[in-house]
Amino acid sequence: MKTFKIAILVGSLRKESFNKKIAKALIELAPENLSLEIIEIGNLALYNEDLEQELPIEWQQFRTAIKAVDGVLFVTPEYNRSVPAVLKNAVDVGSRPYGKNNWDGKPGAIISVTPGLLGAFGANHHLRQALVFVNVPVMAQPEAYISQVGNLLDENGKLTSDSTRDFLVKFLNAYAVWVERNAG
Amino acid sequence: MKTFKIAILVGSLRKESFNKKIAKALIELAPENLSLEIIEIGNLALYNEDLEQELPIEWQQFRTAIKAVDGVLFVTPEYNRSVPAVLKNAVDVGSRPYGKNNWDGKPGAIISVTPGLLGAFGANHHLRQALVFVNVPVMAQPEAYISQVGNLLDENGKLTSDSTRDFLVKFLNAYAVWVERNAG
Amino acid sequence: MKTFKIAILVGSLRKESFNKKIAKALIELAPENLSLEIIEIGNLALYNEDLEQELPIEWQQFRTAIKAVDGVLFVTPEYNRSVPAVLKNAVDVGSRPYGKNNWDGKPGAIISVTPGLLGAFGANHHLRQALVFVNVPVMAQPEAYISQVGNLLDENGKLTSDSTRDFLVKFLNAYAVWVERNAG
Amino acid sequence: MKTFKIAILVGSLRKESFNKKIAKALIELAPENLSLEIIEIGNLALYNEDLEQELPIEWQQFRTAIKAVDGVLFVTPEYNRSVPAVLKNAVDVGSRPYGKNNWDGKPGAIISVTPGLLGAFGANHHLRQALVFVNVPVMAQPEAYISQVGNLLDENGKLTSDSTRDFLVKFLNAYAVWVERNAG
Repeated sequence: MKTFKIAILVGSLRKESFNKKIAKALIELAPENLSLEIIEIGNLALYNEDLEQELPIEWQQFRTAIKAVDGVLFVTPEYNRSVPAVLKNAVDVGSRPYGKNNWDGKPGAIISVTPGLLGAFGANHHLRQALVFVNVPVMAQPEAYISQVGNLLDENGKLTSDSTRDFLVKFLNAYAVWVERNAG
Repeated sequence: MKTFKIAILVGSLRKESFNKKIAKALIELAPENLSLEIIEIGNLALYNEDLEQELPIEWQQFRTAIKAVDGVLFVTPEYNRSVPAVLKNAVDVGSRPYGKNNWDGKPGAIISVTPGLLGAFGANHHLRQALVFVNVPVMAQPEAYISQVGNLLDENGKLTSDSTRDFLVKFLNAYAVWVERNAG
Repeated sequence: MKTFKIAILVGSLRKESFNKKIAKALIELAPENLSLEIIEIGNLALYNEDLEQELPIEWQQFRTAIKAVDGVLFVTPEYNRSVPAVLKNAVDVGSRPYGKNNWDGKPGAIISVTPGLLGAFGANHHLRQALVFVNVPVMAQPEAYISQVGNLLDENGKLTSDSTRDFLVKFLNAYAVWVERNAG
Repeated sequence: MKTFKIAILVGSLRKESFNKKIAKALIELAPENLSLEIIEIGNLALYNEDLEQELPIEWQQFRTAIKAVDGVLFVTPEYNRSVPAVLKNAVDVGSRPYGKNNWDGKPGAIISVTPGLLGAFGANHHLRQALVFVNVPVMAQPEAYISQVGNLLDENGKLTSDSTRDFLVKFLNAYAVWVERNAG
């Protein structure tokens, strides 16, 4: 059985981020044929084409890391009804330089996570639109909208909700099928 | 006649940015009762709630600047079918800290600009969705989609297209009416 | 004090529609200067430009009705993460024939309603995008996402939730200010 | 070699519809392993859950037709920056009755077509959002935005543009790969 390397990108930078905790839960819950690893995106300079001349080392490392994986899993909060800048920036940096799109063809999936009630729906679907352009085929179903996340984690950041754990396992299993079908 | 102070936010950082050139054209073409000024957003650290404790000086200056204006004009390219991170970051930084939304109630308008053919439509409308949440009422018509911008500017970055100039004047006049109606 | 005539368009056709019940609650809760009336949209033939030659009587009546109001309030469920066809059809029929947009300049607001958990977010924002084009300035805040509506109504379709009633009153008062500012 | 049956849904009803002409061109240009057929959607009553009791014969036929195909190709104009009602209605009718989603798992693709300049971008991406929910995995690249379609067809509705024909062939070949990977 082939094991697929999957990058997790987390759209929140704060130390106690709910999204990071969900990302860590995903690593533990992943099926055997998916190897998940969080890739750092908080150190990427805001995209500016002029910087391609001097090529920040963090951009270079990030692009190399994305190029090396078989698929990408996005875990994102919603900021102002859309994608946090840090995550959109990672998409933009990874898609460049012009003509060298590092995302090309890598199967993706999105989990949106919020302490609020509406599942970070706006972030989830805006991200989908961007991923069309960089040719990341994103799994349709199941969609994953994690609301009121504060109630789902204990003081150590571990999942306490069985139904959420079951859902994430189901989600990851569906994603494994998606990756098998669509990975390069 | 009251003069309204309007911030221009430009969603591109490169030195020879087409969007900056269009922003400068707007300053020249603005009607008498709008005073337009570009506000720097490239120096804002990626939003991270933990930073509110140390409060980066650039965040503070930006928030103060936004608080001081009567309206906001967004000039944006499209990156990967959505808003560039630098501009989304400015929206996010300006909307915080929690409970202190600096955009609140300031009438807005959007001009999307692209060397491509599709008017940066995706950026234009994703930005509209974010601005709903921060309570910036965005002018509906006329919409402004500037395609193939490379053909509209001379080597000094000046507008060469009369029809584009006429359109921008019409757009700014409509925006002036929008600001008069909806400013605080 | 001027009274503004406001059309309510309801995006659900079934007899026991939750959205219709919310629409009726809105009529009762409206402030004195808003006169709300539900306008029928279920009888409009699917838009087909060829029909402009024979002009269905229902299209004609609907266009006349929209032309006569000062503003438009949309109450909509979500079908498949977007606007129900019946409501999108009403927007399309009202925007035509070419060059005679009956919505032009009428201030709008949106309440999305669902028995589900995510507030019919997708319908709410897709409708906003369409309303930009027909020049309906849509109120930004407060947004209105009514989730789990089945729990908010009694067997006679009356609102039982005080907090929802209070929210709708607040929403309608904000809309009244929006209409005063932006009505033609 | 297996041949896949593909339904084409066209989002425009008028007799001389540009979208119908592009749909017919697609049928001629399809690779050997795709068998394309236009499925009628103009006769479907607007979705109303109450009608499930009497089940309109056209709904029944449409659902049976969708159930029978291996994939779905959408050809759509843009009405007011979003999906035409006739096409959204087909998506809604096909997704029901509750618990019997006829679209489930069928690989899809979208071509948006307009006499205008912006490629019917708004319709293209709103349709993508709806198709996520009904579990139609939509091909990411190549995207297909056909602008100024009036210049691409002769008086008999035949494609005159070689570059458009080449693009559509490339698009259909990519879609054939997409269907092979993701069909049932």
